[in-house]
Amino acid sequence: MNVASDDRRFVLTLGCPDRPGIIARITSFIAGFGGSIMEAGYHSDIDSGWFFTRQAITASTVPFGLDELRARFAEVAAELGPETEWQLLDSGARRRAVLLVSRDGHCLHDLLGRAASGELPATIEAVISNHPDLGEMTRAHGVPFHHVPFPKDPAERGPAFEQVRELVDAHDPDAVVLARFMQVMPPELCGHWSGRVINIHHSFLPSFVGARPYHQAFARGVKLIGATCHYVTAELDAGPIIEQDVIRIDHGDEVRDMVRQGRDIERVVLARGLRWHLEGRVLVHGRRTVVFS
Amino acid sequence: MNVASDDRRFVLTLGCPDRPGIIARITSFIAGFGGSIMEAGYHSDIDSGWFFTRQAITASTVPFGLDELRARFAEVAAELGPETEWQLLDSGARRRAVLLVSRDGHCLHDLLGRAASGELPATIEAVISNHPDLGEMTRAHGVPFHHVPFPKDPAERGPAFEQVRELVDAHDPDAVVLARFMQVMPPELCGHWSGRVINIHHSFLPSFVGARPYHQAFARGVKLIGATCHYVTAELDAGPIIEQDVIRIDHGDEVRDMVRQGRDIERVVLARGLRWHLEGRVLVHGRRTVVFS
Amino acid sequence: MNVASDDRRFVLTLGCPDRPGIIARITSFIAGFGGSIMEAGYHSDIDSGWFFTRQAITASTVPFGLDELRARFAEVAAELGPETEWQLLDSGARRRAVLLVSRDGHCLHDLLGRAASGELPATIEAVISNHPDLGEMTRAHGVPFHHVPFPKDPAERGPAFEQVRELVDAHDPDAVVLARFMQVMPPELCGHWSGRVINIHHSFLPSFVGARPYHQAFARGVKLIGATCHYVTAELDAGPIIEQDVIRIDHGDEVRDMVRQGRDIERVVLARGLRWHLEGRVLVHGRRTVVFS
Amino acid sequence: MNVASDDRRFVLTLGCPDRPGIIARITSFIAGFGGSIMEAGYHSDIDSGWFFTRQAITASTVPFGLDELRARFAEVAAELGPETEWQLLDSGARRRAVLLVSRDGHCLHDLLGRAASGELPATIEAVISNHPDLGEMTRAHGVPFHHVPFPKDPAERGPAFEQVRELVDAHDPDAVVLARFMQVMPPELCGHWSGRVINIHHSFLPSFVGARPYHQAFARGVKLIGATCHYVTAELDAGPIIEQDVIRIDHGDEVRDMVRQGRDIERVVLARGLRWHLEGRVLVHGRRTVVFS
Repeated sequence: MNVASDDRRFVLTLGCPDRPGIIARITSFIAGFGGSIMEAGYHSDIDSGWFFTRQAITASTVPFGLDELRARFAEVAAELGPETEWQLLDSGARRRAVLLVSRDGHCLHDLLGRAASGELPATIEAVISNHPDLGEMTRAHGVPFHHVPFPKDPAERGPAFEQVRELVDAHDPDAVVLARFMQVMPPELCGHWSGRVINIHHSFLPSFVGARPYHQAFARGVKLIGATCHYVTAELDAGPIIEQDVIRIDHGDEVRDMVRQGRDIERVVLARGLRWHLEGRVLVHGRRTVVFS
Repeated sequence: MNVASDDRRFVLTLGCPDRPGIIARITSFIAGFGGSIMEAGYHSDIDSGWFFTRQAITASTVPFGLDELRARFAEVAAELGPETEWQLLDSGARRRAVLLVSRDGHCLHDLLGRAASGELPATIEAVISNHPDLGEMTRAHGVPFHHVPFPKDPAERGPAFEQVRELVDAHDPDAVVLARFMQVMPPELCGHWSGRVINIHHSFLPSFVGARPYHQAFARGVKLIGATCHYVTAELDAGPIIEQDVIRIDHGDEVRDMVRQGRDIERVVLARGLRWHLEGRVLVHGRRTVVFS
Repeated sequence: MNVASDDRRFVLTLGCPDRPGIIARITSFIAGFGGSIMEAGYHSDIDSGWFFTRQAITASTVPFGLDELRARFAEVAAELGPETEWQLLDSGARRRAVLLVSRDGHCLHDLLGRAASGELPATIEAVISNHPDLGEMTRAHGVPFHHVPFPKDPAERGPAFEQVRELVDAHDPDAVVLARFMQVMPPELCGHWSGRVINIHHSFLPSFVGARPYHQAFARGVKLIGATCHYVTAELDAGPIIEQDVIRIDHGDEVRDMVRQGRDIERVVLARGLRWHLEGRVLVHGRRTVVFS
Repeated sequence: MNVASDDRRFVLTLGCPDRPGIIARITSFIAGFGGSIMEAGYHSDIDSGWFFTRQAITASTVPFGLDELRARFAEVAAELGPETEWQLLDSGARRRAVLLVSRDGHCLHDLLGRAASGELPATIEAVISNHPDLGEMTRAHGVPFHHVPFPKDPAERGPAFEQVRELVDAHDPDAVVLARFMQVMPPELCGHWSGRVINIHHSFLPSFVGARPYHQAFARGVKLIGATCHYVTAELDAGPIIEQDVIRIDHGDEVRDMVRQGRDIERVVLARGLRWHLEGRVLVHGRRTVVFS
C-alpha cells in the first residue's frame, strides 16, 4: 500500500465484463501521455466474469487536468462496453464525512482523534446524534454537533430522519458513517445515500444480526467475537462487507467484558473500512466487495 | 499451560453451584495429604451461578493411589451438594481415540503425524471411513482401518451406522473424532457417545451451518473464514463449542482457495480442541464450555 | 475476565517461593470470614520455583475494612516466608495516571477517549510534554497540560527531567505512562518510579531496539510489525514485557505505511497493558511478567 | 489468489528498474496474441526504484508453446533494460522438492500429508537426514529416504555435506527445504543452491537468531512466539524473509509448551512459504522479498 499523503494521485477505479486486452488498453492509455502508475490492483472475478481495477497515477506525470483526463478516459471506457462503471478521483481533494452517533462514544472519539492526527483522509464535517451526550467533546474538536431527538415510537421517527437527511445533505458528504448510531435506517435513506452509508456492526456477520449481538455471542458460547464494517442497504446488516476482524475471548468473559474488548476491534475495523472507502479502494459488485487495500 | 508429558498428574475437574469456601475446601483437602498443585484453573460463572475448577496434582506427591484419592474426594464432593459433577483423571493413563473420516484426508494426516511425533495425548485406536481411499496411509502408520460403505439413500444408512457403533465401542474410546466425516450422525449415536464426539466444522459457527460452508462464505462475501471444533449433539452444528479460529481471505480467493486455506485452520483447531478434551480441560455447561487451556 | 466496573473488589496479589499448601492457606483465610472469590489466578513457575496468585474478593462479602483485611492477611503472608511480596488493592479506589507525550498524539487521543468513555480504570491527572502541540486537545478534555521544553543537547536535559519529576510526583500516580514520549528516561528516574513507568515501544521487542524501529523493520523485510508495552528499566527497551501484538504488512508497505498501521496496535497494546497494570494483574519476577488477564 | 490446480497457466515474473510504460508494454505484448491474464500483481518499490510484476496467463489462450513465448518475450525484456530479470514458468510442469530433516518430524509429516492430499504444488523427490529416525514413515509415503550420518565435530562434516550435495543435485530440485534440519549449511552450498534453499526458523526473526530460540524467548519473557520461512544465505538466519507468523503464549507456558505450540506455526509458515516459492510468487530484491500471494 503506497499511500502517499504528500503525493497527489489521480485514482482510476473501473469494473466491466472481463475479456482479454483490458489491462493493455488502460495502461497503454496512461503510458500514452507518460503517466506513472504508482499503485495498481487488478482482479478477474471468475465467478461473475467481471474485471476490476484500481490504478493510482502520479498527478505530476499527467500533462493536463483531471477534467481533461476524465474526458479522454471516457473514450477508453466506452470501448470496454456499456456496462462499464468507472471513476477518477483526485487524492488531493479533501473528502468529507458526516458521522451519526448515539450515546456510545468510542468510535466517535477514535475518528476525531484520527482526524486530529492527520490519519483520516477526510474532514469530519458534522456529527449528528439522537442524544446530546457527545456534543461537548465533538465541539472541543471544532466539529459542529447536531442533536436530533428521536421519538420512542419507531413509527413516529419519520420527521427526525427527515431532519437528519437535511443536515447530512447540506454537506454532500463522501461518507455517511454510522459510528454506533443504533437506529435502523429507513429504506428510502439507504437508497438515497446508496454506496455512501457505512455501518460498524459489533459482530462477525452473518452471525448475530440485529440487536444485542454480544448477548447473542455469549449465549452461543463462541470463542472469538468480531466486528464488521459494511455498506448499509435496505436489508438489515446484510449489505456488502468491507472489512471484518475478530478478537479472542474465553469463558471468563461476561457480556460486559465482550462489550469492552469488542470496542477495540470496532474502532479499528470501522477506521480501516472508512479509509478504504474514502481512498476509492472499495468496488462493490452485487453483495460482495473488491477491496484493493 | 504446564503440560508436562513426563510428569504424571492426577487431574481433578469439578463443577457445582457456586458459594463461598469451595476453593478453600478443595485445596485444603489436597494440602491435607501434602499434594502439590502444579496447575489450577477456577471460574465463577456469574450468569449461571456455577463454579468450575480444574486442578492438576503432581502424582508423586499423593501418598496413595488414584482409587483411594477418588474415594476420599467423593466425601468432599458430597459436601458441595448433590448437583456436583466431578472427575479425577490420571495423566499417565494413555487415552484412546477413534477417528471417523470420509475422503478428505488433511485432518487425518495431521492427527496421524501428531501421534507419530508424540504430540497427541492419545493413541489412535482405529480409523473408520465410508470410503476406502485413506486406508493405505492409515495402515502405514500401524493403525487399523475399517471401511464401512454407506448407502446413497440416507434413509438406508441405519445398518452402516450400527456397524460404525460396534467398531467404535470395541475400543471404548475417550474421544470419537469426526475428522471431516461429512455424515450427519443419528441422534441415537449422539446420545450414546454424549460428551465424547468431537466434530470439526469448516466455518466460524454459528455462521454457515450445514453443507458447503465455504460456498456460503463466498456468496456472503466475508473477509475471514473460520473453523469450529465442537461437541456433537442431536441438533446439527449446534453443540457446545470447544475452539474456533479464523484466517483472512480476500476478493481474489475463490471457493477452491478457501477450501485450501481453510484446511490450515481446520487442522489446528481440531488438534487443539481434541487435546484439550483429552487432557480434561473442557467442562460443558449447557450450550457453553469452560476451557482451562 | 470478570472485570466488574460496578462491583467493588478487594484484590490480593502475591508472589512467594512455591511449596504445597499455599492456595489452601490463602483461600481458607478468605473462606474464614465468608469472603467470596470472584476471580482467581494461580501460577506455579517451574523455572524459578515461585508461586504467584491474584484473587479478587467481592468487597461486600468482607465483614471489615481494607486496613483490617491487610492487617489480618499480613499474618498469613508471614507464614509464607520472608521473601513473600503481596498487595491488597481496592478496586473501588480510583487510580491515577500521568502521561508523558511528545508530538505524536495517537496514543494520547486514544487514552483520553477511553477515559471519556469510562474504559480506563484511572483518571488522567496530567499530561506532560516536551512540545506544546498537544496542549489544546488535552485541556479540551479537562486535563492539565504541562509543557516542559527539552534542550537539544541530551547532556543538558537534567533540569528538564527534574521538572518532569516534580510535576509527576505532585500527583503520586499509580502509573507514569510514556505514551510515545520519545525521550530516554535517565536511570535515576527509572529507579525512582520503579515498577510504575510503562512505555509503548513501536516494535516487537527484542527486535528493533532503540530509534526508528519501523525503518529497521523495513530494512530487514519482516512480514509483521509489532508493538510492545513494557516496564521501563535503566536498560533501554529491555524491561519486563507486559503485552505485545503484531499486524501483517506486505512488500507494498513503505515506512510511512508501517507508521500509520503500527499506530493501531500501539494504541491497543498500550491501553491493554496499562489497564492490566492498574487492575493489579501484572506481577513482575526478574525480567518476566505474570499477567492474570 | 486464483490458484487453479486444474487450469494451466504460463506465469511471468519480472523485475527491472521502474519507469512509466512498463505495464503497458508487457500487457500489450500479451494482448497482442489474445492472451488472457487471470492473475496480475504489480509493485513499484519507491525505496529502490525497481518495478516487479507477476502475471498468470491462461495457457489455452496462448497460440504457441512456452519456448516460443519465451523467445518472443525476450525481445520485450530487452527493451526494459539490461538489468531486467525475468522468468516464464509453466504451472502444468510439476515442481520437484528435496527435504532435509533431522529428528524432529512435525514439518516432514505435514509436508508428506500435504503432498498426499494434493495440496503441495510439487513432488517430494527425496528426504535426506543426518538421523535414521524418520526413514520408515518417509518410505511408507513412497518417498526415497537417505541417511547421511554427520560426525559430531563440525570441522569434519565436509564429506557429509558433499554427500548431501550429490544426493540433492541428482534431482535438480526447484526447492531444497530445510524442514528443521538443524545443521548450519556451509557457505559453498548456500551459494551453489542460491535462491532455492528454504529454511524454517522457529522464531520471529530477527529476534532469537541461532540455537534454541524458544529458550531465548522464554528468558526474554515475550508474549508471542513466531516462526520465519526464509531463503538461506551465508549469513546465519539473515536471508530474505518469505513469510512469518506468530502465536500467543502466556506466563504459564514453559519452554516445552512453546516447542509444542510453536510447531503449529512452523508447519503452516513453512508450507505457505514453500508453496509461494514453487508457484513463482516470491521475487527477491536485496534482503527483501516481494510476495505476490
